[in-house]
Amino acid sequence: MADLVDLRSDTLTRPTAGMREAMATAEVGDDVYGEDPTINALEAEVAALFGHEAALFAPSGSMANQIALQLLVPPGDELLCDADAHVVTYEIGAAAAYGGISSRTWPAVGADIDPETVAGMVRADGYFAVPTRAIAVEQTHNRGGGGVIPLATLRELRGVADAAGVALHCDGARIWHAHVADGVPLIEYGRLFDTMSVCLSKGLGAPVGSLVVGSAEKIERARMIRKRMGGGMRQAGILAAAGRYALAHHVDRLSEDHARAARLAEAVAPFGVLATAVRTNLVLLDLTKHALDARALAAAAREQGVLISVLGPRTARLVTYLGIDDDAVTQASTALTRVLSA
Amino acid sequence: MADLVDLRSDTLTRPTAGMREAMATAEVGDDVYGEDPTINALEAEVAALFGHEAALFAPSGSMANQIALQLLVPPGDELLCDADAHVVTYEIGAAAAYGGISSRTWPAVGADIDPETVAGMVRADGYFAVPTRAIAVEQTHNRGGGGVIPLATLRELRGVADAAGVALHCDGARIWHAHVADGVPLIEYGRLFDTMSVCLSKGLGAPVGSLVVGSAEKIERARMIRKRMGGGMRQAGILAAAGRYALAHHVDRLSEDHARAARLAEAVAPFGVLATAVRTNLVLLDLTKHALDARALAAAAREQGVLISVLGPRTARLVTYLGIDDDAVTQASTALTRVLSA
Amino acid sequence: MADLVDLRSDTLTRPTAGMREAMATAEVGDDVYGEDPTINALEAEVAALFGHEAALFAPSGSMANQIALQLLVPPGDELLCDADAHVVTYEIGAAAAYGGISSRTWPAVGADIDPETVAGMVRADGYFAVPTRAIAVEQTHNRGGGGVIPLATLRELRGVADAAGVALHCDGARIWHAHVADGVPLIEYGRLFDTMSVCLSKGLGAPVGSLVVGSAEKIERARMIRKRMGGGMRQAGILAAAGRYALAHHVDRLSEDHARAARLAEAVAPFGVLATAVRTNLVLLDLTKHALDARALAAAAREQGVLISVLGPRTARLVTYLGIDDDAVTQASTALTRVLSA
Amino acid sequence: MADLVDLRSDTLTRPTAGMREAMATAEVGDDVYGEDPTINALEAEVAALFGHEAALFAPSGSMANQIALQLLVPPGDELLCDADAHVVTYEIGAAAAYGGISSRTWPAVGADIDPETVAGMVRADGYFAVPTRAIAVEQTHNRGGGGVIPLATLRELRGVADAAGVALHCDGARIWHAHVADGVPLIEYGRLFDTMSVCLSKGLGAPVGSLVVGSAEKIERARMIRKRMGGGMRQAGILAAAGRYALAHHVDRLSEDHARAARLAEAVAPFGVLATAVRTNLVLLDLTKHALDARALAAAAREQGVLISVLGPRTARLVTYLGIDDDAVTQASTALTRVLSA
Repeated sequence: MADLVDLRSDTLTRPTAGMREAMATAEVGDDVYGEDPTINALEAEVAALFGHEAALFAPSGSMANQIALQLLVPPGDELLCDADAHVVTYEIGAAAAYGGISSRTWPAVGADIDPETVAGMVRADGYFAVPTRAIAVEQTHNRGGGGVIPLATLRELRGVADAAGVALHCDGARIWHAHVADGVPLIEYGRLFDTMSVCLSKGLGAPVGSLVVGSAEKIERARMIRKRMGGGMRQAGILAAAGRYALAHHVDRLSEDHARAARLAEAVAPFGVLATAVRTNLVLLDLTKHALDARALAAAAREQGVLISVLGPRTARLVTYLGIDDDAVTQASTALTRVLSA
Repeated sequence: MADLVDLRSDTLTRPTAGMREAMATAEVGDDVYGEDPTINALEAEVAALFGHEAALFAPSGSMANQIALQLLVPPGDELLCDADAHVVTYEIGAAAAYGGISSRTWPAVGADIDPETVAGMVRADGYFAVPTRAIAVEQTHNRGGGGVIPLATLRELRGVADAAGVALHCDGARIWHAHVADGVPLIEYGRLFDTMSVCLSKGLGAPVGSLVVGSAEKIERARMIRKRMGGGMRQAGILAAAGRYALAHHVDRLSEDHARAARLAEAVAPFGVLATAVRTNLVLLDLTKHALDARALAAAAREQGVLISVLGPRTARLVTYLGIDDDAVTQASTALTRVLSA
Repeated sequence: MADLVDLRSDTLTRPTAGMREAMATAEVGDDVYGEDPTINALEAEVAALFGHEAALFAPSGSMANQIALQLLVPPGDELLCDADAHVVTYEIGAAAAYGGISSRTWPAVGADIDPETVAGMVRADGYFAVPTRAIAVEQTHNRGGGGVIPLATLRELRGVADAAGVALHCDGARIWHAHVADGVPLIEYGRLFDTMSVCLSKGLGAPVGSLVVGSAEKIERARMIRKRMGGGMRQAGILAAAGRYALAHHVDRLSEDHARAARLAEAVAPFGVLATAVRTNLVLLDLTKHALDARALAAAAREQGVLISVLGPRTARLVTYLGIDDDAVTQASTALTRVLSA
Repeated sequence: MADLVDLRSDTLTRPTAGMREAMATAEVGDDVYGEDPTINALEAEVAALFGHEAALFAPSGSMANQIALQLLVPPGDELLCDADAHVVTYEIGAAAAYGGISSRTWPAVGADIDPETVAGMVRADGYFAVPTRAIAVEQTHNRGGGGVIPLATLRELRGVADAAGVALHCDGARIWHAHVADGVPLIEYGRLFDTMSVCLSKGLGAPVGSLVVGSAEKIERARMIRKRMGGGMRQAGILAAAGRYALAHHVDRLSEDHARAARLAEAVAPFGVLATAVRTNLVLLDLTKHALDARALAAAAREQGVLISVLGPRTARLVTYLGIDDDAVTQASTALTRVLSA
């Protein structure tokens, strides 16, 4: 189906010619021995982008997050996050299953976090309760429709964390989008978090790879945790070369994806199915009041040549990315309008 | 200090003469072999009280809860409960650390559960998200100030669980109090839950012991989990004898503890520190607006011969139980009035 | 069946009249708050017996062992023990399932440990391999037929542990038997180990309870692990009173159990089924060359009024203890002779 | 140092020009969605090679092994393997830490397994002991100096596994070497095991990647475990293309690596440091009787332009692979002769 417009996810991005060229000529070594020069360069580059001492390459965003959480929270201690956070939703329960990490959640408000609510949930040592060791936020927020947590909110959360002596982690799989949408320098974000995960294979378009960012001491320990999770790869410089290319060429262009997502939102808005205002490259649909549920909508859209994601019985998602151009957006908008008005 | 009134917890109850007599003469055997007649009798009795097929004795309420959770939720799958639930607050993170159980929480509303909020959090299999396997409620609710979840709410939650195909667990450490306060037969509660934990050593006054209640198949597996947790005891009939005595003599009298808690509440209410209405034997204090914080209040009360529990920086708790008579309540009321008005 | 001689296990011992009296009059408090005077006295007493700073009461020997192992070995690091050790055989995999502890084993040689073999298995940090953190031995050795590890061997193992910087744990459920059989003072044993578990409810005849022994710092952490495992009991002084009675009255008399086990061994020896020389109260049968397998032997013995334990297809066990007197041994010897010669 | 001969590991292999070309032109898709055609082709190809229904790509051999073990052994149940097995030596304790898998080990005999010893260790359900669920072997055996387990031995082990109703897993990271050394068809090996892991990035020279092989049902579950471990990669076809190239071009040539390893062995043999006969591409040195320990030897060799691996205080390893030609072997032999005779 040459004409299919695939809006399911930005993870679908295929490597560009330039990126393939970078991979084909990458200098590599054995990264388990710390000897892959391209991996080392990428790790240094990403650490510097966020003003941290070190970074570590991982085969997926889930692994990068889970490494960070295992760094911050010992087995039996507690993580706070929102009820829709990727770390407790889409990572197959790894934090608990492998890290033994207990979690409590604030309501699923996406990017609209109330720092006071979070502060009220933190539990200090010494009251017999499970002690909170880390708070995790997600920037941008996936199930929150690509919402961007305002810098001011993040700073308040940093204050909450500092006051309680707990760590702050950022699941920054799409932090590049927040950076482009709000104009906040990456290094500004970096200084607010103890650990971050950032992803090269979603909006940035690299085929594989995420990084954990943190202090030198943490990343040293992260290396062992990564090996325990089975993430120690050998000549991974092939992948890192794509990541470096993505960082050099694919960050600024995210504004195009955002504009295209806005166009999609405009097309579906009249049908009352927009779950949240669109800030970045995700368009979240709330079908509670529509005749079609999420699976029916996806099936009908597919008939019209458009693929979308089903996130829940009444929740669907459209995503723009490197492979979706203006024509594709026009085609998808027409198709979705037809389906939603049927 | 002969005059100390100890309101910290109903776990402080000491065995009565009659209970000691029951222990001294208990017939016993090796319960790991299933041969302790007093244990077997207690397990049958408690199962029958709640209309379930079987029950299993455990050395603590925490172990009884954790056995039930491990029965219901495989590693990496999900438990829903409230953010103040005993199972994610006071059990040292065992659900995650030992059971690998992922948890998400609804806000800490004590007994005032909104079934629709819970329904909105349940995640079915098949949407790539961590699947919910169990919902846990706490009856009465400890950090909710001894609040009683209304039977109607529990029935709605049973409906939510059924609709989603997930299990419903009751942390019923103090379910006897709910039974006495609301007049709901224990067997009515029993039929609403897949598993329950009930405790003999708090309000009921036995020295040690809780039970897990459930189907014969579940309790069969529970026996193995209990042994893995180190809860396989030998001639535990000594303890079960106390439990059987408690069930025979100490359930109805809980109304006295409730009346005494009400008197304590009356005494402190004028100072604006009552966190919730008092329904059972717990009196929860919210010191947010008082000059004294929880530790200062506890210290000052101690000076006046009254011991209370500190649950958080601004949260304290008073508890009535078998060892607290009317005179003790009078003494404590006078002392707390003095301290709070200082 | 009044005439049954039950040789299955020393865990079957029922409390004596004196022990029951001690329980009935025990002073108790809430041990989760550290306020049970009888528990505190027992813990101090047992710590002193072994020359350690502190001890902690636990509801079972399995929990005492598992607490110790979790103290010594972080998740993912390594424990060495023999392939028949109780800690990897009869504790339902708790070390791995709850502690995340990796284990490697030396061959099942019971008490006949070769320290050089153990030394050859220890892995130091820094060679990329899982680092060994603890070595565990079992004194006396259950599946090793109650064998006693010689003091000289234990000293060599202490040397191995010291040279490698790893801890040495003793599963001392039946260390009292070793003490009586070899005349080694308990305190001599105590000084060789970083942690020990000792049991009150097997040969010593208390209904329930074991203790973990170690440094003050370790036992402080052990208290939290015990609570996580669900072993925090309330007025456990009832049980501790029995334990103190057992320590005062039932240690020296173990020599009688040993003599009786020797008589049983004499009776079965002519049939070539004695697996090992009998040193204490266990008689291990190896039925590899006998017509009856273990289940058949147990069934036939039962017909003759004697209960024995089946440990494997061709392995069975006879145990003497407080409830087995000379007449019972005579009766059992006659019965077993009849069955084995059939 | 252009002249360094790096014999530390076959994981050091760098992709060849042909392999890079294959990667550069690989067709890719999102493998988390099962839509990467090159991954799908590789998985089908490898499954077919071993006569199994399905296979799953993983970022490392450790992850492939750990996925298989988690498939076969539930938390708290038991794995048997040898004391030097990669799965309990070099995978950072993941089997226990993440899988909760209890392990017992037979002595470190490398490829010289005695099936009767293994049979004697297996524990069936129903004797109260931790039940054995899987036996793992390693072909070829890394710490066993690249030894090859004879087909007859493997067949006996299959019989042991069948008799006991337990699974048999092959850590086949270097099974290609066994195939080439012993002339056993891969499909012959395949039919003996319930699950296998095979590696593309060691002897075969691909930059990254291993596969788990098994039944369709197992590989379906493996997909979820892989995601939980963080091994769900997106356009991983880039890596799979290298793997397919390696399978097509680099299997038969392993005989050259074996011949070169034999030459190295010949060079060092006169110094009495050969730990085992050399069968494949690994040369294991036992320095127990030599003046130099492993670290000293490695340092001295490095001075002479040769890098070797230190596996233990007195154990070192030389490895031949795609990047080591005859000249390199000559140079290394000369250097090692010089160092060992010093």
